[in-house]
Amino acid sequence: MLAGAGSLFAVIRLIGLHLAAPAAGAPSSSAATAAPGTLAHVLLALLVILIAAHSVGALFRLLHQPPVVGEMIAGILLGPSLLGRFAPAAFAFVLPAPVAPYISVLAQVGVILYMFLMGVELDTGLLRNRAHTSIAISHASILGPFLLGSALALWLYPLYSTSAVPFTVFALLLGVAMSITAFPVLARILSDRGMHTSRLGAVALACAAVDDVTAWCLLAFVVSVAHAQPARVLMTLLLTAVFIAAVFLILSPVARWYAGRYSRRGGGGQDAMLVACAALLLASVVTEGIGIQALFGAFLVGVIVPHDSLLARDLVQRLEDLVVVLFLPAFFVFTGLRTQIGLIHRWSDWGVCLVIILVASLSKFLSGAAAARLTGLRWRQALSLGALMNARGLVELIVLNLGLDLGVLTPTLFTMLVIMAVATTLMTAPALNALLGEREAALMEQTL
Amino acid sequence: MLAGAGSLFAVIRLIGLHLAAPAAGAPSSSAATAAPGTLAHVLLALLVILIAAHSVGALFRLLHQPPVVGEMIAGILLGPSLLGRFAPAAFAFVLPAPVAPYISVLAQVGVILYMFLMGVELDTGLLRNRAHTSIAISHASILGPFLLGSALALWLYPLYSTSAVPFTVFALLLGVAMSITAFPVLARILSDRGMHTSRLGAVALACAAVDDVTAWCLLAFVVSVAHAQPARVLMTLLLTAVFIAAVFLILSPVARWYAGRYSRRGGGGQDAMLVACAALLLASVVTEGIGIQALFGAFLVGVIVPHDSLLARDLVQRLEDLVVVLFLPAFFVFTGLRTQIGLIHRWSDWGVCLVIILVASLSKFLSGAAAARLTGLRWRQALSLGALMNARGLVELIVLNLGLDLGVLTPTLFTMLVIMAVATTLMTAPALNALLGEREAALMEQTL
Repeated sequence: MLAGAGSLFAVIRLIGLHLAAPAAGAPSSSAATAAPGTLAHVLLALLVILIAAHSVGALFRLLHQPPVVGEMIAGILLGPSLLGRFAPAAFAFVLPAPVAPYISVLAQVGVILYMFLMGVELDTGLLRNRAHTSIAISHASILGPFLLGSALALWLYPLYSTSAVPFTVFALLLGVAMSITAFPVLARILSDRGMHTSRLGAVALACAAVDDVTAWCLLAFVVSVAHAQPARVLMTLLLTAVFIAAVFLILSPVARWYAGRYSRRGGGGQDAMLVACAALLLASVVTEGIGIQALFGAFLVGVIVPHDSLLARDLVQRLEDLVVVLFLPAFFVFTGLRTQIGLIHRWSDWGVCLVIILVASLSKFLSGAAAARLTGLRWRQALSLGALMNARGLVELIVLNLGLDLGVLTPTLFTMLVIMAVATTLMTAPALNALLGEREAALMEQTL
Repeated sequence: MLAGAGSLFAVIRLIGLHLAAPAAGAPSSSAATAAPGTLAHVLLALLVILIAAHSVGALFRLLHQPPVVGEMIAGILLGPSLLGRFAPAAFAFVLPAPVAPYISVLAQVGVILYMFLMGVELDTGLLRNRAHTSIAISHASILGPFLLGSALALWLYPLYSTSAVPFTVFALLLGVAMSITAFPVLARILSDRGMHTSRLGAVALACAAVDDVTAWCLLAFVVSVAHAQPARVLMTLLLTAVFIAAVFLILSPVARWYAGRYSRRGGGGQDAMLVACAALLLASVVTEGIGIQALFGAFLVGVIVPHDSLLARDLVQRLEDLVVVLFLPAFFVFTGLRTQIGLIHRWSDWGVCLVIILVASLSKFLSGAAAARLTGLRWRQALSLGALMNARGLVELIVLNLGLDLGVLTPTLFTMLVIMAVATTLMTAPALNALLGEREAALMEQTL
């Protein structure tokens, strides 16, 4: 049969070979297509990013360091700081200039999905049910680093900013950059140790959650005032308030109703993902339109998903792996491509960098520990919590990229602050080891 | 406390306002960033695509049509055929030219993930355990449409091809385009009715699986011969054979071992996703490098994942929703952007289009039904199976885009064949209704 078909095709082919087709015109440019070869290069870049991030991450796990630090460092290594400097040919092959924008968009879409997941995993019940004291205390742990950071601006502004950036915006952003805590990390550690149901754990979690929300509010404020005209700022703030009100007053009840219906029928189906994607894309587009970042919209939509519902669990399960495995490494490389360690060439620059790291970690560590001590934790636990809150992780990188995009940070200062983010996250594990001993610390590391 | 902090910040700000920063230099061009506003536009485009695809899909579900037809049509409607023609301003706002390449890359990455999932869901046991007869019969059901398609090339080549395309490649591609069956659809229908464990169902499934694999092999062959030089073709075929052998002889045992280990420790963790992403990206890059498409690599890697393992189930669960909800609609729009119905302006063109649809559906329907009858199905069931096999769905669009990318199809013929793909998928539900009656057909539609 195959032979018969083959010979039939051969006959058709023989006849066809004599046919003439119209002459080829100019190749019609297909607007919808990226340049040829782009897809192959994007796939290659993603492959290298995936392997580099997770290899360095695994190496750091072997060294009893949190893998996320390794992934952050892998991103910097693939950028102009190492690969681009010492192997420019390899750099140009793996991450050529035409491919970088695609990695950038993939990374940003990934971070939007990640912010949504962070919102879903944020337990708003913690914020509602806690006494005012814990909120006051948690504000204290954010205000210390914030004020020290903005005071630092007095020194850094003449050195590393430009006259195009108003001092107020610069000081605000530096304050926020200092006061960030990688909340998801803290939450996971506490819940893994079963501490999140205890009174102390719950207060600590509530503090961290308040920290997180406060930092993002401050940042949204920074973003809105970064646009120069006062009228525009007022409009942005007003629209942001309207947007937040609409999300909590209109979307939130709908989300609760939908989550209830979803769990009553036992989950399943693809409409949960459809509804979630539509809502988070809509919120992202609206917040971008308002003039604050897409991140905030996605985060808020995540927050209104009832934290403990089947819907939340299913969405996290179906999104988290791909986002964490494929998209976040792309974001680290996106950050790494913009981190140019070569810009810090003078010894005095390195001195400034060291001061930034010291101010950031001491202020966060001490005010975090003091706040935790006031909630009733014993000193050793309070200090451990301070050390944990000093881990800035991915969240800090999101803030810094935002500052760079807004033009508030110069590439030099951006690079210094990225080094600070890596250093503070890097010192968490040794600090915990010293404070808690190996066994407890090992448990924390695995979840970091 | 807040007031204190506020006034402290006010003091810092007052001092800082007197500071002068260095003059702003030329804005440093950040290579890693897409043009400003790109992200917002990509998010907007994704939102519109998501809503359009799933609304039209839901509308088609109401009309007792498979939603996938609605999503295909939504993609065409958002393209130059409708939106671009009658509302050019809206089209330029939603899908401006600078945004299209990003949608294109997202769509292609999505299709690569989808091909991987199709591979995972392909039950290779079916191919191994069946008698040679069923394979022979299934080949018959693919050879009919293939030969008729290539015979059709004798007529279409002088009309719609260009002299830049060799007749052999043109005839091969047209043959493959006619013989495609949307295998995943068929598999899901049979398993939903519990027919896949019966002897008849198993034979039918095996036939469809063989169809699928044969079509992709033929297509890989077409892709490799589309590159003109004979030496290059031989090299491509040789490397492809080496690649396939390496995947089945080396990677496949590793995949079986890993799947066994994964299910022994009860799943969980993110390393399954990491391993899967790394393997499928590697295979995609290698197949792109060889000169066949990334799709084949991803599909093959999917095939070697043991079909019934916990690993396969977890991967499908964690990838499928996002791919189907967000990425596939982007692919339909990517296709729609390249489908210009305006190119079919003469009545004779519409006549040709009609002939293509008739040849495609009659040849597939009749040879599918004849093949099914020979496996022992009763006539009514055999005809239903023929009608099912005529649904070409998404798989056909993948083939057609490949043909357009290779330059084998002109935009006009591409448009005609897209219309054929939509039409054949569209006629499946009414044909099943007529053959099987409402109840059974409704069951089929839901899964289509």
